[in-house]
Amino acid sequence: MKHATNQGQNRVLRPLWWNAAAGRDGALEMIDQTRLPSELVTITCTTAAQVWEAIKQLRVRGAPAIGVAAAYGIVVGLDEAAPTDANWRVEMDKVCDFLATSRPTAVNLFWAIERMRRKGASLTVKSWADARAALLTEAHAIRDEDAAMCRAIGGFGQHLIPDGGGVLTHCNAGALATSEYGTALALMYAAHEKGRRFKVFVDETRPLLQGARLTAWELQRAGIDATLICDNMAAVVMREKKVNAVVTGADRIAANGDTANKIGTYGVAVLASAHGIPFYVAAPSSTFDLSIPDGSAIPIEYRDPAEVRRIGERTVAPEDIACYTPAFDVTPATLIAGIVTEKGLISPVSESAIRRMLAGAAQPSP
Amino acid sequence: MKHATNQGQNRVLRPLWWNAAAGRDGALEMIDQTRLPSELVTITCTTAAQVWEAIKQLRVRGAPAIGVAAAYGIVVGLDEAAPTDANWRVEMDKVCDFLATSRPTAVNLFWAIERMRRKGASLTVKSWADARAALLTEAHAIRDEDAAMCRAIGGFGQHLIPDGGGVLTHCNAGALATSEYGTALALMYAAHEKGRRFKVFVDETRPLLQGARLTAWELQRAGIDATLICDNMAAVVMREKKVNAVVTGADRIAANGDTANKIGTYGVAVLASAHGIPFYVAAPSSTFDLSIPDGSAIPIEYRDPAEVRRIGERTVAPEDIACYTPAFDVTPATLIAGIVTEKGLISPVSESAIRRMLAGAAQPSP
Repeated sequence: MKHATNQGQNRVLRPLWWNAAAGRDGALEMIDQTRLPSELVTITCTTAAQVWEAIKQLRVRGAPAIGVAAAYGIVVGLDEAAPTDANWRVEMDKVCDFLATSRPTAVNLFWAIERMRRKGASLTVKSWADARAALLTEAHAIRDEDAAMCRAIGGFGQHLIPDGGGVLTHCNAGALATSEYGTALALMYAAHEKGRRFKVFVDETRPLLQGARLTAWELQRAGIDATLICDNMAAVVMREKKVNAVVTGADRIAANGDTANKIGTYGVAVLASAHGIPFYVAAPSSTFDLSIPDGSAIPIEYRDPAEVRRIGERTVAPEDIACYTPAFDVTPATLIAGIVTEKGLISPVSESAIRRMLAGAAQPSP
Repeated sequence: MKHATNQGQNRVLRPLWWNAAAGRDGALEMIDQTRLPSELVTITCTTAAQVWEAIKQLRVRGAPAIGVAAAYGIVVGLDEAAPTDANWRVEMDKVCDFLATSRPTAVNLFWAIERMRRKGASLTVKSWADARAALLTEAHAIRDEDAAMCRAIGGFGQHLIPDGGGVLTHCNAGALATSEYGTALALMYAAHEKGRRFKVFVDETRPLLQGARLTAWELQRAGIDATLICDNMAAVVMREKKVNAVVTGADRIAANGDTANKIGTYGVAVLASAHGIPFYVAAPSSTFDLSIPDGSAIPIEYRDPAEVRRIGERTVAPEDIACYTPAFDVTPATLIAGIVTEKGLISPVSESAIRRMLAGAAQPSP
């Protein structure tokens, strides 16, 4: 395994970062997540096209991490364009428009690009050098706010991870999906830092195996006791009382608490309920979409059947067999024991509790 | 895709058969199931070593099919040895002992070898030629009885497959696992022959993907509407009311009806129960082990972690990550709506109903 210099075993795991010493004026660097877990390779992006390709090809993935990549990517693209004091706003629009085409369905991509555009529009500086400094500071702020949010989620949820117990997670809602620390995995990192020892069962998460490739890797790297299972083993692990809680991330949460997340999450929640095990969701409050009353209104993306028929380049099924390919499913709020956000723990889950939490100021982390 | 001459689209699918025209005096032929679904390749076995290797390497798999392979394999091994009228019994012992080492945990392998030994011991013939004829007849009988049993299971269970409905299955309890027709899939083949049209959702069945590789292939070949899903999609398919019944095979059934089957079956049964969908098991009556009072006494085999870490030759997880690797799980009888055997349908499932059914004569198929 190749180890990037700033991603050693004892460092906080970050999927991407600004390296001021790289390129001419600094560059965006990231772990190429498509090479994990067999190789830990760092990519240095000094052009907008490199950032675009990295997002498109899932070298960086996870909604918060994509947003951070886009924010830094705007600075990278402008450095590449080397604009004048007169035309940097025009050049910035071009870079933003270009990066927005990398993953058209990634909400955080647009959110981060819009925030950078607003910052640019608000600047009254005379020189490109001053504007660049302000834009880079804004990109750093996006990253730092995300990291702080993840730490807060960990703080509010860590008590749900019992000492000497077991926990199960699905997909990757970890450091690799955020700027650092993660959402679902933040609870485990925080509990681990408090000295608690516990076992994590990691669903491999077909079809794209984010659990096997990414969650297993980052938990193992952090020294947390992780055991990989095929998705269809979760029920037996629960029945054998190896698991005291389930924690997953979320892609979108409706006003009533119904939660869309990676395909397979709903099944895990039903199994947890049948075995009397609490099922928790961990996500930043920006994941709530109060314009959606309940889960039935959350649109579900269907993906390429080849993802089910194949694993990597290997075809494992008849080439023309029909496949059902939902990318996400919706877990009803009735199956969710609690939702952990950077503002606190919502438990029990109800529309009024969600609205109270979102309206309120952040609570001090326990 | 290569097509073997006697396995055309309109022929009954058999995973193995005796070809009287092959070799010098006939030979055992089989589909190499390790090459499915990308290639349909027939192997001709004219030596005991070839039969041994085919069983060992899972070119033929499924308890009933392994038994048939061993029975024919004894004739193949004796033809290879070319024994005299004086020493064929000694040679037969050697072949039987050798074939028994191919898969030490396969109960049907030993059952078939013992039955052939008993047949050999019972023979009072003078010549090897007469003995060979009797042994080949016995092997044919083992095959034909298994085929008849599968047909009877299909007959007793086909009414559980609703016209215009959907059914879900896990792993491969199909023609490829038996001499023909299968157990769980027998219900679907029989319903299809009666002109009913329905949709089958096929769990891919990690880690070894028997659903994706074998069940999807054989249903498609039979013209049955099959849709492949990742195991973690079963819950959503049920929630969307796409499925009216679940049918799986069984590896061993305890006296109270608790059923051991491929890992993942228990989870499917819990999910079916949570969605109000009946869960059925289809298996020959020889699958019952009345010496085992309930599922807690059924031993579970744990397999090589590499099967979970890898798919084919591709490693999809950290190389040294711990894995949980049960090959089977146990579904409690309380989750099973009915068990279909060649003697009829046991529903509701209870120890007394099971004992009555097993003690009784076969009923006429409805």
